[in-house]
Amino acid sequence: MNTTVAMNITKSEKSRISEIDFNNLAFGSVFTDHMFFCDYVDGAWQQPQIAPYGPISIDPSAKVFHYGQAVFEGMKAFKDDEGATWLFRPEENWERINKSSDRLAIPEFPKEYFFDGLKTLLHLDNEWIKSGDGNSLYIRPFVIATQSGVSASPSDRYRFMIICAPAQAYYSGEVSVLFAEKYSRAADGGVGFAKAAGNYASQFYPTNLAKEKGYQQIVWTDASTHEYLEEAGTMNVFFRVGNTLLTAPNNDRILDGITRKSIIQLAKDAGIDVQVRRVSVSEIVTAATSGELKEIFGAGTAAVVVPFKSFGYQEKDYDLPSIEDSYASKFKKALKDIQYNRASDPHGWRYEVK
Amino acid sequence: MNTTVAMNITKSEKSRISEIDFNNLAFGSVFTDHMFFCDYVDGAWQQPQIAPYGPISIDPSAKVFHYGQAVFEGMKAFKDDEGATWLFRPEENWERINKSSDRLAIPEFPKEYFFDGLKTLLHLDNEWIKSGDGNSLYIRPFVIATQSGVSASPSDRYRFMIICAPAQAYYSGEVSVLFAEKYSRAADGGVGFAKAAGNYASQFYPTNLAKEKGYQQIVWTDASTHEYLEEAGTMNVFFRVGNTLLTAPNNDRILDGITRKSIIQLAKDAGIDVQVRRVSVSEIVTAATSGELKEIFGAGTAAVVVPFKSFGYQEKDYDLPSIEDSYASKFKKALKDIQYNRASDPHGWRYEVK
Repeated sequence: MNTTVAMNITKSEKSRISEIDFNNLAFGSVFTDHMFFCDYVDGAWQQPQIAPYGPISIDPSAKVFHYGQAVFEGMKAFKDDEGATWLFRPEENWERINKSSDRLAIPEFPKEYFFDGLKTLLHLDNEWIKSGDGNSLYIRPFVIATQSGVSASPSDRYRFMIICAPAQAYYSGEVSVLFAEKYSRAADGGVGFAKAAGNYASQFYPTNLAKEKGYQQIVWTDASTHEYLEEAGTMNVFFRVGNTLLTAPNNDRILDGITRKSIIQLAKDAGIDVQVRRVSVSEIVTAATSGELKEIFGAGTAAVVVPFKSFGYQEKDYDLPSIEDSYASKFKKALKDIQYNRASDPHGWRYEVK
Repeated sequence: MNTTVAMNITKSEKSRISEIDFNNLAFGSVFTDHMFFCDYVDGAWQQPQIAPYGPISIDPSAKVFHYGQAVFEGMKAFKDDEGATWLFRPEENWERINKSSDRLAIPEFPKEYFFDGLKTLLHLDNEWIKSGDGNSLYIRPFVIATQSGVSASPSDRYRFMIICAPAQAYYSGEVSVLFAEKYSRAADGGVGFAKAAGNYASQFYPTNLAKEKGYQQIVWTDASTHEYLEEAGTMNVFFRVGNTLLTAPNNDRILDGITRKSIIQLAKDAGIDVQVRRVSVSEIVTAATSGELKEIFGAGTAAVVVPFKSFGYQEKDYDLPSIEDSYASKFKKALKDIQYNRASDPHGWRYEVK
């Protein structure tokens, strides 16, 4: 392993891996033997540490509890059939967590700390990364504000952490989505583009209401007019009208998804007409009615690509057709072939952990 | 003391009160000897507890760290010259934390737990509440999502807590504010009306930018047009044009402030023309230019009433006049006289802790 950052490492005395049923993993509920953490104190990130995974001790007045000053990332490690471990575009995650941190007034985390921490952790917990299609290790880097005190101002102490959870192929059942008409995820000039903790909790209640009506997820629309389709909260969204692929542009409300940008590139590579532009609810409803709407799918790290079965809007449901050779399945296969080192990697997205 | 809820109480062995310099308190940085907490497990709030104030142990995957599922309240206890302890409209805080919880998909907290917990805690830490004008005990009830696991869905475990910090008269120096033109605090259909943790961290970065320009606070405008003045993030805002008092109506972006609604009532009681309606940036700029704008002030629990010295908008600063007998000082005095049991209390806002 090629690392340069000095790290304080305490190994776990006994691995918990034998207790884990790798064929029955609820997403993000079981964590590996170790965790990485690094504290920001007195204006500087201190020496990073790795310790056995376990609870942390934190003051009840810590700012993360009161003011939601916290950001995170989602990544995956994949093991190929020869036992090599791969990440997918990890520099993008490092850049994005710092972009999120900037917006939340959190200090940026140094690149070599991020990569050396990640590599050392994946080296120690390598047995937790299982080969085989759909298996992966979900990686959760995050930063929390740890300063004690309830004045509403940026913290002067932070903890950066990485924890890891083994994951199986994400199967969500058939997904029906609801287009948002009343509730919103993000404001213009707000933090919707960042992976800020508070963006997620604010979706729980409207999503519960949608679930009561039989939908699994919400596709958020712009808060001002609810006329334009934006993202699904944990996924970006693509629409296929005829053979044209549509997705909303990045702005300060929409997350700059790594799976999203990879799909846009794969679509271009395949000669598909991909349009990154505002997508209106009315054009999608019209296309659904005329039969031109072929697919809607979500794209994100956890689920990779999730085809939607139907959408609801203004008390009416619109079914999507079953398509052989769908864009969703095409992009999912192409992404996974790159991620598991089963195909060539023309854009250099794969990153070997060694 | 009149309480009915069974509580598990562990008293601190030795009070820290002798170590505290009550004449030099930074806001919200020193906490009393005890804390109240109650866990929500298996669909029910368990037996409440009081324990010595100190760090809590929490899994690094707890949902509060990743998804900002947390809400809070701010209250104060006051001691009058006879040594009696008073709260100000505490039922409003209990109602509001549950309104915030509803929006964040957090279970509501029972009224008797809230009041019995508060009373028991204030009884134990009564010495920390100092009499004398400006002295108070700042009380911070809050709820955090404690379930382990990083799937983006509502937690099935929570901790409700109350912690308390002795406070002095809030002196913020002269306050210049900036009217927001680009950044936003809250979306229509979002969580701006709730005391949701994530609403606060998202203001830190724009506020830092405003501070670099010499302003202390931002007055947020509506996210869609930036044409209407809303609130200051930790305070509601009032405008006096001539002798008319203006403040924005409550909506899903603006906090329903208890100090705000008390001032509206006091203004009505005093026969002042108070208009609760949308307040446009342009009318305030026009009134400032013509000399009709007499005062702008913020109103909130921590600071009570804070007069603003000037505001900035589109790279221009507008000074506010110095006024004898200002509305700000009038309402501040009236509120404090009620809070410290120095005046009659026609609306029944005072609540004795006994």
